[in-house]
Amino acid sequence: MSAPSGRDRLERQFAFLNEADRLKHVMRATTTVDGTRPENSGEHSWHLALYALVLADQAGPGVDINRLIRMLLIHDLVEIDVGDVPIHSQNGKAHGSVETQAAEARAADRIFGLLPEDLRDDLRTLWDEFEAAETPDARFAKSLDRVQPVMANLMSGGGTWKTYNVTFHQLETRVGSKIARGAPALWDWVKAKALPWFG
Amino acid sequence: MSAPSGRDRLERQFAFLNEADRLKHVMRATTTVDGTRPENSGEHSWHLALYALVLADQAGPGVDINRLIRMLLIHDLVEIDVGDVPIHSQNGKAHGSVETQAAEARAADRIFGLLPEDLRDDLRTLWDEFEAAETPDARFAKSLDRVQPVMANLMSGGGTWKTYNVTFHQLETRVGSKIARGAPALWDWVKAKALPWFG
Repeated sequence: MSAPSGRDRLERQFAFLNEADRLKHVMRATTTVDGTRPENSGEHSWHLALYALVLADQAGPGVDINRLIRMLLIHDLVEIDVGDVPIHSQNGKAHGSVETQAAEARAADRIFGLLPEDLRDDLRTLWDEFEAAETPDARFAKSLDRVQPVMANLMSGGGTWKTYNVTFHQLETRVGSKIARGAPALWDWVKAKALPWFG
Repeated sequence: MSAPSGRDRLERQFAFLNEADRLKHVMRATTTVDGTRPENSGEHSWHLALYALVLADQAGPGVDINRLIRMLLIHDLVEIDVGDVPIHSQNGKAHGSVETQAAEARAADRIFGLLPEDLRDDLRTLWDEFEAAETPDARFAKSLDRVQPVMANLMSGGGTWKTYNVTFHQLETRVGSKIARGAPALWDWVKAKALPWFG
């Protein structure tokens, strides 16, 4: 299929950008740092990209920060269709389940499918890589995605740890292990901050 | 001054990242695409970075998209202290005034000053370049920053054009000229979309 002409291409680019706006209405269990309201997945994606920019020196060998930032900008778009599944909730088992993965793949088909084909393929490849969590970029992306809510909980006085009665052991298993996989020194530092909260 | 050790450095990196969270509470005059609520400057910054990723082919020669994305991620942080000044409001003259520029420079001193010195200098240089709007990266960044609210107004049925009784001539002068400076084909396309709205 030939490339769309300039105007058709812009129609498709903006169909995607306007649809992406809906991520600003997907609410997460985690609150903003001041604890006053839930964070949405759009502003969360911005905050994570800023994390990547500022914590680049915590990345292991082979991490490309520019690529990582792109990955973080698009990592949650599937939540427009699927919503956010809080890790610590009773429904936490759904996080990463076969059913959730299938629903997210359908969402990726639909949402990235709005784009011109070259962009669709580029962004879908990045998202698939994030989901697989095997490359250095994806592992570090997952570390940042896990450490940001820990920091929000610490700053806001407990956050989702209170909501879901989380133990330090659960935090270490569900969250710490993922942070440590891509950014071990970062987990050491955050763990020392979190331990006193759990007493 | 010697570089801070690992732990001191992380303290400063997170002092900045936690402070940056406040941008999620700075409200803009523009609404989300569905028109249901004002957009905040945090999610706006995410959306703009996504614009850069998707509209890279509209950039002129010499634009570095990775650098542009970094610039857009930090471009509004000064609003934590200064707030957003809507271009079409009665107070629109304050946008870019000497007083506003001075207040924004003080905000940049404070907010980027939370970071370790190397990062502080890197991000401040990027922000100064955005504000000056003279380089190819900064001009294209300004184009995207102006086109995104136009699209939100079109999608939501008028938005700030209704709020502030904006004429097409005012749109062209205040907004279109800035879009066209960095992305002329994009303004041509958006102008054709906007004209029927103004009737």
